[in-house]
Formats: sequence, structure tokens, C-alpha cells
Amino acid sequence: MALDLDTGLPSTRQIQTIIREETEVEMKLTTGDVLTGKVRWQDTHCICLLDPHEQPTIIWRQAIAFIKPKL
Amino acid sequence: MALDLDTGLPSTRQIQTIIREETEVEMKLTTGDVLTGKVRWQDTHCICLLDPHEQPTIIWRQAIAFIKPKL
Amino acid sequence: MALDLDTGLPSTRQIQTIIREETEVEMKLTTGDVLTGKVRWQDTHCICLLDPHEQPTIIWRQAIAFIKPKL
Amino acid sequence: MALDLDTGLPSTRQIQTIIREETEVEMKLTTGDVLTGKVRWQDTHCICLLDPHEQPTIIWRQAIAFIKPKL
Amino acid sequence: MALDLDTGLPSTRQIQTIIREETEVEMKLTTGDVLTGKVRWQDTHCICLLDPHEQPTIIWRQAIAFIKPKL
Amino acid sequence: MALDLDTGLPSTRQIQTIIREETEVEMKLTTGDVLTGKVRWQDTHCICLLDPHEQPTIIWRQAIAFIKPKL
Repeated sequence: MALDLDTGLPSTRQIQTIIREETEVEMKLTTGDVLTGKVRWQDTHCICLLDPHEQPTIIWRQAIAFIKPKL
Repeated sequence: MALDLDTGLPSTRQIQTIIREETEVEMKLTTGDVLTGKVRWQDTHCICLLDPHEQPTIIWRQAIAFIKPKL
Repeated sequence: MALDLDTGLPSTRQIQTIIREETEVEMKLTTGDVLTGKVRWQDTHCICLLDPHEQPTIIWRQAIAFIKPKL
Repeated sequence: MALDLDTGLPSTRQIQTIIREETEVEMKLTTGDVLTGKVRWQDTHCICLLDPHEQPTIIWRQAIAFIKPKL
Repeated sequence: MALDLDTGLPSTRQIQTIIREETEVEMKLTTGDVLTGKVRWQDTHCICLLDPHEQPTIIWRQAIAFIKPKL
Repeated sequence: MALDLDTGLPSTRQIQTIIREETEVEMKLTTGDVLTGKVRWQDTHCICLLDPHEQPTIIWRQAIAFIKPKL
């Protein structure tokens, strides 16, 4: 499963921008949970979100419905 | 994961038409959320929707149930 | 992702028959939605349903639970 | 997507036995629906169930939670 | 789809142990159902559970959330 | 299905750290269940969690929404 992220994809690039600019985001999961924080890293399986107390949550991509900048 | 969109598929082409014509659409997600707006881009993993205030939401394909023109 | 529909599969063929004969169908989605109409096309990712007003809905296969002729 | 059913797998073989012996089964779907009837065919994407009135329902495998003989 | 079970994986091996030792297990499905019984076989698509009356239920892996020994 | 875990991925490595340091974690599943305990092992299909009584639960990856250190 040594699949790399395709950095040419808009979705990959935009998440990279969100990481670099430390944008506050809101993530809606298929469980109905809404998590907010900053994205620290992404890989092919997961996205890691830091909550306001810098606690990391490792989120599986299959459980993500959408992500958007927090207003 | 350098998979390209297959632009020969009807689904890919119709989403491209929706993007080009800036059609207002309604998307139903598996979470039950209904999002409305214009599709800005699609790639193999995600579809990006702009809400009426031009705010982008990156939606994972696995969470999409259906998309249709808003009436 | 240039995967073609395998027209040798019973499921593909039966959907093709439904398209050709313009059979009125009922589709149950994993969201719980029940959509009715006629199937216009299918590809490897999606199935397009026309409602009674000829409005198209593009439905992602992953969200389909079942399809059956409307009685 | 010309993937054949692996007839060496226990699951494939048992569904084939259910088809051949016209066993009445109960299928629970991830939508919560419970469908009963006889399995007419299976392919890599779908399983077709006939209800007591011989009406076919094409069920996508991804939506199947379990199948068992109806008691 | 002639994919074999990878018997080197901890998950495959532990299910094999559960089968061999006829351990009573509890399975939680994504439907919310909790099934109990003994695992009779596993393949790449399904796991077969025998209920206390020796009735088999064929469970699709995609619908399994977790499995644990029944206490 | 002899796919190995890609130990170069941040997600794989962080789960390995959680295993090695015996960090108490909280896992949210797509069923809505929240399980707590220590991760004993991971493979490409599953993650095994030990509850406070050292009872193992084998959790399928597809059912995992997120994992985070228990505070």
C-alpha cells in the first residue's frame, strides 16, 4: 500500500495549502461529527486535525464527508 | 494514486458541463446534508462546491449520494 | 480510472435493459432516499435517473442500495 | 472491471448453493431494510433477489450487511 | 477477484484462531446489529457466523465494525 | 491481498507510536460507538484495541472514523 499522495490533484493541493496557511477548518464526518481545528498533515489514508488545545485527532479519509474553512 | 479522471465517462463529462455552465446544483450527501451551490472543480477524490457567498467546500466523492440541478 | 462497464455482467445488462425499455424504477439509496424515474445512462461511477419532469439526478453507485421495477 | 466471481470462495459457493436450491433467504442491508425472497443470480457487483411475487430487486453488494436462510 | 486471504496478517490469523477454538464472539455491524455465535469460516469477502441454533449467517466484511470474544 | 502496511506513512507511524508508548486512546467508529483502550497491533485490514480489562476487540479500518489520545 505504498501509494503516494498525488500532489497534482486539486484536492491534495488545497489541503496542502490549508496545512501551510494554518487555516482554521471545519470537517464534517459521515458519523455526523463536526470537528474544527487546523490540519497538521495528510497522507493517503488519514488527515490529522489539531484541536484548539493542540490535541491531534487522526481522521480516516473514508469517514470524511467534507472540509471547509471555518468562518 | 495518480489516477486521472476519465473524461470519456458520462458522469465526468456532465460534471464538467455543470462546472463550465456554472449550473446551480443540489448535492445530497450520505450524512443527510444537502448542499447547494456551483461546482468549481472535480478530481478523482473530491468535488469542490462554492456556496452563494463563494465559500468553497471540498466534498469527498465517497460521501456523495447524488447531485442534481437546483430548480 | 478508464474502467469500462463489463457488459457481460448480469447487473450491467439488466440496467441496460431497464434503460432501453424505459422501465419506471424505484431506487433506494443508503441515505434512505427513495428515488423513482427512468434510468437514462450508467457508467462505472454513476447512474443517471430522470424524474417524471425529465429532470436528471446523477447518483453515485456507492450510495445505491437497490433498484427494482416500480409496480 | 471484467472481474469474475471467484467460485473457489466459500461465500461465492454458498450463494450459488442458495440459488440452486432456491432457498428462501433474509437479507439485511446497511440501510436497515430487511428483504426476503430467493436469490436468482449474483455477479461481482450485485445480487438479485426475487420477492414472493417473482419481482426482481437488484441489490448492490456494498449495501449488504448479511444474508441468512429464512426460518 | 481470486484474491486469497493473507494468512500472515494478524487479523486473518486471529480470526482463524477464533474459528479453530470455536470461541463465542460478538460482532457489531455498521447497521448497529450485534450478532453472537461462533465463526465457521472466513474468506476475502465474508465471515460466516453460526448462531446458537447452528444457523449460518453470511456477513459481508464491509459491514463489520468489530468482533470480540463474548464475555 | 498480501499488502503490507506502508511504514513510511504518517498515519501508520503514529499508530505504531501509540502502540509502542501504550497510549490510552479513544476511537470513534462509523456506528457511533466510542471505544477506549490501548492499541495492541494494526494491519492493513484491522486495528486491535485492548480494553481496560485486557480484552481484545478487532476493529475493521473501514469502520473507523477517528482516533485520538484520551485526555
